[in-house]
Amino acid sequence: MGSPFDVTVADLRRRTSLKWHTYPDDVLPAFVAEMDVLPLDAVVDATTAAVAAGDTGYEPGPNSPRGVAYAEAFAEFAARQHGWDVPVERTRMVPDVMIGAAEVLAVVTAPGDGVVVNPPVYPPFRAFVEHAGRRVVDAPLTPAGRLDLDALDRAFRDARAYLLCHPHNPTGTLHSADELRGVGELATRHGVRVVADEIHAPLVVGDEPFVPTTTVIPDAIALHSASKAFNLAGLKTALAIPGPAADDLRRLPEIVGHGVSHVASIAHQAAYRRGDAWLADVLAAVRSNGDLVAATLADRLPQARWHRPAATYFAWLDLREVPAVASTGADPARLLLERGRLAVNAGPTFGPGGEGHVRLNLATSTGILTEALDRLTTTLAAPR
Amino acid sequence: MGSPFDVTVADLRRRTSLKWHTYPDDVLPAFVAEMDVLPLDAVVDATTAAVAAGDTGYEPGPNSPRGVAYAEAFAEFAARQHGWDVPVERTRMVPDVMIGAAEVLAVVTAPGDGVVVNPPVYPPFRAFVEHAGRRVVDAPLTPAGRLDLDALDRAFRDARAYLLCHPHNPTGTLHSADELRGVGELATRHGVRVVADEIHAPLVVGDEPFVPTTTVIPDAIALHSASKAFNLAGLKTALAIPGPAADDLRRLPEIVGHGVSHVASIAHQAAYRRGDAWLADVLAAVRSNGDLVAATLADRLPQARWHRPAATYFAWLDLREVPAVASTGADPARLLLERGRLAVNAGPTFGPGGEGHVRLNLATSTGILTEALDRLTTTLAAPR
Repeated sequence: MGSPFDVTVADLRRRTSLKWHTYPDDVLPAFVAEMDVLPLDAVVDATTAAVAAGDTGYEPGPNSPRGVAYAEAFAEFAARQHGWDVPVERTRMVPDVMIGAAEVLAVVTAPGDGVVVNPPVYPPFRAFVEHAGRRVVDAPLTPAGRLDLDALDRAFRDARAYLLCHPHNPTGTLHSADELRGVGELATRHGVRVVADEIHAPLVVGDEPFVPTTTVIPDAIALHSASKAFNLAGLKTALAIPGPAADDLRRLPEIVGHGVSHVASIAHQAAYRRGDAWLADVLAAVRSNGDLVAATLADRLPQARWHRPAATYFAWLDLREVPAVASTGADPARLLLERGRLAVNAGPTFGPGGEGHVRLNLATSTGILTEALDRLTTTLAAPR
Repeated sequence: MGSPFDVTVADLRRRTSLKWHTYPDDVLPAFVAEMDVLPLDAVVDATTAAVAAGDTGYEPGPNSPRGVAYAEAFAEFAARQHGWDVPVERTRMVPDVMIGAAEVLAVVTAPGDGVVVNPPVYPPFRAFVEHAGRRVVDAPLTPAGRLDLDALDRAFRDARAYLLCHPHNPTGTLHSADELRGVGELATRHGVRVVADEIHAPLVVGDEPFVPTTTVIPDAIALHSASKAFNLAGLKTALAIPGPAADDLRRLPEIVGHGVSHVASIAHQAAYRRGDAWLADVLAAVRSNGDLVAATLADRLPQARWHRPAATYFAWLDLREVPAVASTGADPARLLLERGRLAVNAGPTFGPGGEGHVRLNLATSTGILTEALDRLTTTLAAPR
């Protein structure tokens, strides 16, 4: 069989979602976390059957016998993928990972409290924390894209919670069990609660395993969803999973569950139960695309620096030394959009440490990625 | 053709949503706002096509040329249904009506401010206001289920916003243009902003028209969605629509749009564009079911009092004088569940004024409604 990314540009332009309808048609989109992927048949079948049967009412709540159907499907997936024993009965469904993270933060902190994040990081981390009336406290990653325990030690003095991105977006870093243990010790010492966005957990593309945060930090709370790994951003729902020593989810207001989409729950359950082979194909194609990026950059833009992601389908490229940037200090994303007609995510939107970087989306066909890399290297290899 | 409610109990039990999976199988569910309805073909077709094409990414944002597709579909529907000229370019998409209402309240009020509601009212009105850190101020409806302008005048002294339910849930009241004008004058005098949940607007079943709040109160903000009228609670999204003098939506944080489901948007657009005939059939069937309730109660439970709803598919029944309640003061919903094996919404959950009432869902087949009315009248007609 072919790659799950065998979708033509014509097909992609017929889609009506954000990625292919934000810029004019001469711009190639390689930004935003949408995959140019063929859908998983099991998701199509389950969603179609539900809608055709009129099964479009409310998701059953925690008091219904069916209220744990999503958690059960996720638990089976997590056991296979991560060897993780998920406490099904103690989970809570939330509308999506970021709304869920904000609601969990609202339970474990008070207004005005500091919440630590690790820039460069997924931009909504800052925006959701601020929107929840909490204060963002930065603990930047190391230059190698790893957690900086000294920076966390300092930041935790001024915080009550830590919004951990694991795997880390945009760097694709997988935090090791040792690092998580270090985080847990610091968090306990400072009275800081760890809330982990683990939406990219199924997207492991390197040799390291994903270590679930709550298996190392018992009072952490993790957020999971099938929406990233199975390209269901448009059909979102998510699950909050407490560690063995976290009982805060009992204080999550009942109304938080009202925003959950039942049809999304059905789609995600199909993905979790019958998506392993599809996901393996996606991960193989992302790995292969990583090889293409590595070879192309080494050949045509050797000044670009990057670490191969351990997870996620992003390439986080440090372009500060490439000719067009080094000579001008310009934002490479702006150069790429204006001169190269390539849309990538601009590094500065990820906060401190993002300057001179871009996030490139690897979840596409070899043909489209080749074209994107052509535009990128041609635009940036020549000094302005 | 048959009724859109021609769905068998066996079919309904195969659905996996809340209504048919909260109680044991011997309980007939007539609670919660799910309709026992056949789906609209246009919704099935559009949703199926989108998922099959992998069109499951993010909803385009306000900066995309496609960011107003939902608003355009709604505007065409609102022009046909209500003669309403919706300001498409000034709308904002939100994840669902209640999340949207809470976010709009957060923009037009400060923490601790009073927000007026009209009990008995849809229970999340209280919960979402409190969850947003605002104070609920009650201005009860009159015994006839109308707005009480004197009560509003008093309540507005202690409030900065008014969360209006129009049409009103659970009473099915449609507020008249005169009443809305009265509200607008009071709101202006007291500096109170009106936020209107208009999710039931398409469900007009009486002779009075729906008058959009913002056409009478220029600085009001309304919330609409296809999820209620087209039975898409499990595939939710919504639209915030400002009146001509309301420019607050520009202050709605960009991240509020992140929770919007693109697939729900596609489903709702199909409903708004191609659902008029289906909706007319649903409304005719709800009206006919209202006739059945009226005849049955007059015949077998004459002590029950109710007003035929002008809108919504609910019957709000005052059962304080029926034998089983009058003799004991018991909550009729509890009697109906325990003795009649019928699940309805308990009046007290709607706040003050809900005592001795139940909300019965009329959006079902004649057969199921007949069985529900049998259980209701048999249980309540005999004194305990």
